[in-house]
Amino acid sequence: MAHRSAAFVAVDWGTSHLRVWLLAADGSILAERRSDQGMAATPREHFESVLDAHLDALAVPADIPVIMCGMVGSRQGWVEAGYLPVPVSLDRIPDNAARVDGVARDIRILPGLSKTDLAAPDVMRSEETQLFGLIRLSPVADDMQRIVCMPGTHSKWVHMEGTSVIDFASFITGDMYAVMAAHSVLHHSLSVDPVDPKSPAFKTAVEASLNSPADFLARLFSIRAAGLLHNLSPADARASLSGCLIGQEIAGALPRFSMPDKIDLVAGNMPGTLYAEALAIAGIQCRSHDGDALVIAGLTGAATALWKNRSVERGGTSR
Amino acid sequence: MAHRSAAFVAVDWGTSHLRVWLLAADGSILAERRSDQGMAATPREHFESVLDAHLDALAVPADIPVIMCGMVGSRQGWVEAGYLPVPVSLDRIPDNAARVDGVARDIRILPGLSKTDLAAPDVMRSEETQLFGLIRLSPVADDMQRIVCMPGTHSKWVHMEGTSVIDFASFITGDMYAVMAAHSVLHHSLSVDPVDPKSPAFKTAVEASLNSPADFLARLFSIRAAGLLHNLSPADARASLSGCLIGQEIAGALPRFSMPDKIDLVAGNMPGTLYAEALAIAGIQCRSHDGDALVIAGLTGAATALWKNRSVERGGTSR
Repeated sequence: MAHRSAAFVAVDWGTSHLRVWLLAADGSILAERRSDQGMAATPREHFESVLDAHLDALAVPADIPVIMCGMVGSRQGWVEAGYLPVPVSLDRIPDNAARVDGVARDIRILPGLSKTDLAAPDVMRSEETQLFGLIRLSPVADDMQRIVCMPGTHSKWVHMEGTSVIDFASFITGDMYAVMAAHSVLHHSLSVDPVDPKSPAFKTAVEASLNSPADFLARLFSIRAAGLLHNLSPADARASLSGCLIGQEIAGALPRFSMPDKIDLVAGNMPGTLYAEALAIAGIQCRSHDGDALVIAGLTGAATALWKNRSVERGGTSR
Repeated sequence: MAHRSAAFVAVDWGTSHLRVWLLAADGSILAERRSDQGMAATPREHFESVLDAHLDALAVPADIPVIMCGMVGSRQGWVEAGYLPVPVSLDRIPDNAARVDGVARDIRILPGLSKTDLAAPDVMRSEETQLFGLIRLSPVADDMQRIVCMPGTHSKWVHMEGTSVIDFASFITGDMYAVMAAHSVLHHSLSVDPVDPKSPAFKTAVEASLNSPADFLARLFSIRAAGLLHNLSPADARASLSGCLIGQEIAGALPRFSMPDKIDLVAGNMPGTLYAEALAIAGIQCRSHDGDALVIAGLTGAATALWKNRSVERGGTSR
């Protein structure tokens, strides 16, 4: 079964995580490794040895190439892979990969996307690879408009037309949620349990931010006051903080883009569930996509574009 | 000069600071001590010894009473002093002071104010003492409406009528500024220098938050992107963060209250200068008041109400 032999290694190397997949030419997963050796926890001079350790553990032959995305391509990463300014066709991503010099193996890092607008500049890195996966797994006509919501530490909302990214905006939502929960006065008030998307406290907070986004800073303080005066439960306090933030993000995103009947939501985990619920409260329907599946599809697409002849050549000799 | 003899000790004991003033009956300062032994840094069982050390250093006789305000009166403080729900006349503050039991000296802690509204509960503690000082230093007619802006970790906007507080709202502005600057992705981008209130970056950010408060979370991320794409300077990045936050607070405060020609701004330091500038950008004129002078006037007013006969009695025997 030639199509099941190892064709390349795909790596998503972000600030806080490292994921490595050994993939067949068709993108099917042969083996997988996950680690918390993110960029932030890894000194620059260890990037090569960290990656090698994972490749050794998977017994990857020396002639198998590696395709990577994420913060590994940032200025603080291994090799800077730059940004492609939007509007841009995602098909240009593979050709703009940066090659890692001074290593025997063929290792490439995919570029991010940028919006160079002077008043509201923006960047993404790794989400472009998920979007490249999205157009492979969920293709649409060339002139089809869609809006993609990608929750995260720095959530992205993306306006696409066919295989092109026309515009996007980032929101500091997840980052603010984490630092306010850990370090602000609200840390006295919050449970550590995950938020129940169906809790009335979450719904009330989403609605409040949608209805009066100007009141955001007062709304956050009132979570603390509700704990002091009305014995707001720690679970409801956390649901309120989450709902305020996600509602505020949606309040900012809605007027930026012309919303279709259904948007695409990229997330397979807890934040995805919360966003789906918050979007429903805002009257927005969505179809959900698994983030891991998209990044693997994007890396596979890039690897195929870069090395398509090579994998065909190998197909005949490998088992 | 009987009026220059020590009549009482005034203490402002907050989360991060402790200030002790030895005052004459007319509120004039005879001696002063400042320390970073705030509530957060002081175990509960040390409250008494910390205060005693400062009183000993000032050689305060055992029969001189102490009046305190701030987080020392919170549930996590020395003795809980409760909250007076608004609307309320500030004249009720002294009578609602909590007495510290189990100590020889007469020590009282002033209560805070609360707003028990179920949808938007709110609390203040120590600002009520500044407001009590404001009506002494800057008295107005009984039916005179005024709006007071009190910048801080949890900024307050207060609607007063004569000597009464009718309504107020807290904003988590200063707290969010500190935690986002220290812990979010923005910490890579910011200088440590104070913000120049006259910098164009500050003005642009204030105007942006006033004009589109729904975009707040995107605006904060774009500070990071501007550093990556446009070499935004660390000083301008900090000015942008400050302007975004203060502008967002003002955007939330303006529609809540009917604004008079001039509002009262309580702050004598850097945040006060930034708020005065941001308010001017929003078209709001203000008269500034020194926060320290107000808290001393408030504590003096409360001490006078509590111990007026006593200080007259002492007047005859002291120097």
